Amino acid sequence: MIDVIIIGAGPAGLTAALYALRYGLSVTVLEKDMYGGQMSLTSSIENYPGFKKTQGTDLAAYMYGQVSNLGCKFVFEKVIEVGLKGDTKCVRTEKHEFYSKSVIIANGLKRRKLNVSGEDEFYGKGVSYCATCDGAFFKGKDVAIVGGGNVALEDAIFLSNICRKVYLIVRKNVFRAEQYIIDTINQKENIEKLMESKITKISGNKLINNITVDCRGKIYDLDVNGVFIAIGYEPNNEIFENQVSMDNSGYFISDDSCKTNIPGVYVAGDCRKKDLRQIVTATSDGAIASNQAIKYVSSLSRFLQPTTVS
Amino acid sequence: MIDVIIIGAGPAGLTAALYALRYGLSVTVLEKDMYGGQMSLTSSIENYPGFKKTQGTDLAAYMYGQVSNLGCKFVFEKVIEVGLKGDTKCVRTEKHEFYSKSVIIANGLKRRKLNVSGEDEFYGKGVSYCATCDGAFFKGKDVAIVGGGNVALEDAIFLSNICRKVYLIVRKNVFRAEQYIIDTINQKENIEKLMESKITKISGNKLINNITVDCRGKIYDLDVNGVFIAIGYEPNNEIFENQVSMDNSGYFISDDSCKTNIPGVYVAGDCRKKDLRQIVTATSDGAIASNQAIKYVSSLSRFLQPTTVS
Repeated sequence: MIDVIIIGAGPAGLTAALYALRYGLSVTVLEKDMYGGQMSLTSSIENYPGFKKTQGTDLAAYMYGQVSNLGCKFVFEKVIEVGLKGDTKCVRTEKHEFYSKSVIIANGLKRRKLNVSGEDEFYGKGVSYCATCDGAFFKGKDVAIVGGGNVALEDAIFLSNICRKVYLIVRKNVFRAEQYIIDTINQKENIEKLMESKITKISGNKLINNITVDCRGKIYDLDVNGVFIAIGYEPNNEIFENQVSMDNSGYFISDDSCKTNIPGVYVAGDCRKKDLRQIVTATSDGAIASNQAIKYVSSLSRFLQPTTVS
Repeated sequence: MIDVIIIGAGPAGLTAALYALRYGLSVTVLEKDMYGGQMSLTSSIENYPGFKKTQGTDLAAYMYGQVSNLGCKFVFEKVIEVGLKGDTKCVRTEKHEFYSKSVIIANGLKRRKLNVSGEDEFYGKGVSYCATCDGAFFKGKDVAIVGGGNVALEDAIFLSNICRKVYLIVRKNVFRAEQYIIDTINQKENIEKLMESKITKISGNKLINNITVDCRGKIYDLDVNGVFIAIGYEPNNEIFENQVSMDNSGYFISDDSCKTNIPGVYVAGDCRKKDLRQIVTATSDGAIASNQAIKYVSSLSRFLQPTTVS
């Protein structure tokens, strides 16, 4: 049986793996996408201590390499079901079933969706949640970006340098972003701001060619080839419902030690209720959760194999 | 007036500086020794995510360079007195007085002392708290090391490769260390273990030449040139007494957000009551404390300069 299953290979999960492996526990990390989590989607990182400036994909690769080097087992499959309440924890992906003594959930967040007609249908066919990843596909074209925060505005600036025209669609009548970013937005001639607006429909044939926008009660049809959605993140914890305690927003509830309501189950990183979601707070959670898992697994071993340490 | 004074330039203080500087606050870091804190005294670090293996001094230099590059002001002086309760915080070193809107205390721990005759007198004249730093001065000589934990045992192994003979003086009758380290100790022919023992006196002329050891009630005089003390760490928070709340052991009490009992005063890293003291948990604290200081300083500005943000 595996000592620790870690769900998620972002900075929290990778640090949890690092600590457990160094202690000599057997570790399997399950990850549905790429290693690195949101970190991998960040073009430039300047606030991780020790690296003056690094690409998110590079930092992710360093962390992944570090734990791979210690013999970590990675399985790149999506977890679809868990049974955590017993002494033996069961974690199921679409293809496999894994059994372990303890589980650390470090599954991060998922991108918030608009929930409008056409959003799912045209995902990957014009609808994107990552301007950094997909912007280059829309060179010289017209696109829309939805959101009023730092990320949406930075993405709008990024897209304005690639695309012909960028519609910036903001729900409120103000931005929730830093002033210097707003100043840059205001200087861009090919960004058109639609305040107090929302997309009501995304249309097309095989690819997007049109969106319907409600702007202060008036309805407009805009010809665009891409829609970027940057309205934030939300928890991704549905499969743990009725097992691991969470708050009304769906974030895991834990104490300082990353313990949950279930013995042997710990949470780390963005998935848990906390004030500040950053790479440094995720790595810290990973170490703390792992330290708890180490204590828990060691206590099981002592129970099974009594020793005479005085 | 300075926005944030940070006391201590270890990983917690440097990360706090990084976050505050990136937000545009003015920051002064006060440090009594070298930047890097305990990190700088660690020869090899393998559990900081992103660096497979690095020297403590190198990682410290990377972090220091990163914040220096952002214009951080460093003053290498020891803080001797603070006045934190008012709106304007005052921090005094032997040479200067500094005034700020907020203070982040990240002063780490200090080494625990034996508190025996000769310990202070011969500090730097044979008494050392850092085998990695000072071991090389004792090449071919006889030394003693005090302590029974991982650090003491690793230091004993390190010293056994340099010195002629190493007396390992342990208070209890067991080690509190990992088995593979104990195994290595047992294979070393020039390490003599004195269990249930303690040094009662350190003697010499200009330099140490003798220690008195009580070993299970019997008194021995041992000719040694060096005494390494590796019995752990304790808080260093005396100057904050009667201002910042602390527990019975002298660690600062704070909530998850690193807030103390005083508005505008935050604590980060090893100095605060917490479960796991590691570089990753220190950097996390630094970011969280800084985030709180940013909110606090921003709220003061809003009060002083009303704006009309809707």
